[in-house]
Amino acid sequence: MVTRRISLLGSTGSIGANTLEVVAAHPDRFRIVALAAGGRWQEVVRQARRFRPEVVAIREERAASLAAEALADLPIEVLAGASGIDAAASWESAEVVVSAIVGAAGLAPTWAAIQAEKAIALANKECLVAAGALFMEEVRRRRLSLIPVDSEHNAIFQALYNGCAGRGWAEEGPGSGGTGAVSRLILTASGGPFRGYDRERLAAVTPQQAVSHPKWEMGPKISVDSASLMNKGLEVIEAHWLFGIPEDRIRVVIHPESIVHSLVAYPDGSVLAQLGTPDMRTPIAVALAWPERIATAVAPLELAAIGRLNFFEAPGDTLFPCLGLAYQALRQGDGAPAILNAANEVAVAAFLEGRIPFLAIPDLIRDALEGVPSALPGSIDEVLDLDRRTRAHALGWVGRHGG
Amino acid sequence: MVTRRISLLGSTGSIGANTLEVVAAHPDRFRIVALAAGGRWQEVVRQARRFRPEVVAIREERAASLAAEALADLPIEVLAGASGIDAAASWESAEVVVSAIVGAAGLAPTWAAIQAEKAIALANKECLVAAGALFMEEVRRRRLSLIPVDSEHNAIFQALYNGCAGRGWAEEGPGSGGTGAVSRLILTASGGPFRGYDRERLAAVTPQQAVSHPKWEMGPKISVDSASLMNKGLEVIEAHWLFGIPEDRIRVVIHPESIVHSLVAYPDGSVLAQLGTPDMRTPIAVALAWPERIATAVAPLELAAIGRLNFFEAPGDTLFPCLGLAYQALRQGDGAPAILNAANEVAVAAFLEGRIPFLAIPDLIRDALEGVPSALPGSIDEVLDLDRRTRAHALGWVGRHGG
Repeated sequence: MVTRRISLLGSTGSIGANTLEVVAAHPDRFRIVALAAGGRWQEVVRQARRFRPEVVAIREERAASLAAEALADLPIEVLAGASGIDAAASWESAEVVVSAIVGAAGLAPTWAAIQAEKAIALANKECLVAAGALFMEEVRRRRLSLIPVDSEHNAIFQALYNGCAGRGWAEEGPGSGGTGAVSRLILTASGGPFRGYDRERLAAVTPQQAVSHPKWEMGPKISVDSASLMNKGLEVIEAHWLFGIPEDRIRVVIHPESIVHSLVAYPDGSVLAQLGTPDMRTPIAVALAWPERIATAVAPLELAAIGRLNFFEAPGDTLFPCLGLAYQALRQGDGAPAILNAANEVAVAAFLEGRIPFLAIPDLIRDALEGVPSALPGSIDEVLDLDRRTRAHALGWVGRHGG
Repeated sequence: MVTRRISLLGSTGSIGANTLEVVAAHPDRFRIVALAAGGRWQEVVRQARRFRPEVVAIREERAASLAAEALADLPIEVLAGASGIDAAASWESAEVVVSAIVGAAGLAPTWAAIQAEKAIALANKECLVAAGALFMEEVRRRRLSLIPVDSEHNAIFQALYNGCAGRGWAEEGPGSGGTGAVSRLILTASGGPFRGYDRERLAAVTPQQAVSHPKWEMGPKISVDSASLMNKGLEVIEAHWLFGIPEDRIRVVIHPESIVHSLVAYPDGSVLAQLGTPDMRTPIAVALAWPERIATAVAPLELAAIGRLNFFEAPGDTLFPCLGLAYQALRQGDGAPAILNAANEVAVAAFLEGRIPFLAIPDLIRDALEGVPSALPGSIDEVLDLDRRTRAHALGWVGRHGG
């Protein structure tokens, strides 16, 4: 068995912690050679002492100094700042880069990993939402392996390519192999905590209510996205770029149990699906070990014990407009998905701070899609610039409309 | 596009009719070069006039003569008897043989097709149930493509090998490729019309009640097998041979809606499944076109319209012992599965004739498994001989116990 050397970007987040659990269970298969994080230096130091990487990169300079001090007794290089993170992303001995830095901060390091021709296990959403054309063109051109970690996209990846023993996807490149015959991708959505709410109840929901997701443990931003269905909208955009499927062949179905993680439909009537106990260690293990299968501590799926799986139509635009706005951004093209994403981040932050109500989130996004000039960004810098301009525009909207 | 030339064995049955529908919808892809049937010569003549095969084979000599007369104006060879069916099965210009002759009569022609190195679309159950070791060894040795048409096994085939673009299965051979990492195969069962019945109600069920299957339109024999769960038992045996998975890693779950056609579980927590509207045209299209996907008239699956999928534990041996008997036959090995199958056929026929009650079916099978000497059959002739001896033994039981 060949040991895969892994650079883990975003080691202190939830995907990072789950990745380290999978790695720890298979010390013969995986070795962490690089850890990168934003600022929680004590946690990174603890991880470094356990996994003994060659390098640790911490974005905050002060935190990086403290980590360097704390790790002085070990032969571990400690780097600081954005350039340090980029260095960890393109670290020479790494073969696989787990891209799990959240938000726009994940764009540059993931780009650096692609330039260094690493295999990518992609958990960051913004790379594909804000810059899908750029990223996938580069991944395809270099014929890199890119496996999505997000449970829905990982499910579609498996449904499309299971049994390929590493051919298929890796050989033909993501977005090109095997999807020509697909008639529909079907993303499942839990529906969030407000499924079935009417306008009156939605108008009154609090941040507290929004962040309590029924099935997956998630941070506040993604919990609000799940409640507004924007999370699913962003996933539609990601699926479009990942699998090269036009937006009118990507559907969403509400599935509150989150057992069926997504599905692929073919014209002969077949639908291939990936199911499982909701646990991120499964897609992480798939992404790290592909095309092999490795054991995880995830509870095996017992359908008879679950008993019943429910499916509902996705709610319409009147009550949950964010999903429709994501489709609209895909149709609009150019920078629209990047604008959608940045405006949504500002809106969610404003909602969590109690400055705007839940139902104002789509209003703000709609205003940004209409008001921010969008050409197709030709580089990561242009994407980041569009992101900044959108945030400024959106903050203006919050200033005018917010509390 | 290359046209695939097909020999269809069992053209007047339900699989035969569905195969011809799929072929008729894709005249550029498929061409029927041989049709074989038991005796319904008028139907075969109608099919031959429409699909213009090179040869027609009919088992009953008298029916074959009548067909020859009726087709005298066309350049179609008409053959008679078992040798005629075997000739159609190994017809030189055929590339794919659809093996859809029901029962033990399907063994010899399918064997002939394998000896002639045809690709096999397998709908006959007995080849694998009664002679799985023999058939699969030969298929593997000759590196032939063998794709199961039965909806459950076709589902597992797809879950295991989707996206392989014809590699995987075809390259590594069935039973060897890609199943090493599998932790469990999970066959779904509708549960039949008597799900939830207690012993008293089961004791009183009539043939009429048993043949009304809730989800699939099927003949009386398979409907009774579905009601007794023996159908699922036979499928466990088939799955064992097809995919090379030990019997203790094959599970059955009751799923009354028959939407999830079967599933494959991996140690990382992933479960791959194939779903669809229950319609045999889907697995037939998969088997004929693999690795490509072709359109069928099967209604696309709309999960939100279906709303709810239910799953239950398979019932225990007290009320539905046939499933357990199939597992027992697999563990017993040698000729036991062939004995199970032949005894079940006699038992079902006796039940349908009103000679034994529903609950006597497993009693008869248990008696045959204990009473018929079984060595591992080393040839198709030995399998057929064991089949005959078991039937004689079982008919004796019916004579002693039946009405």
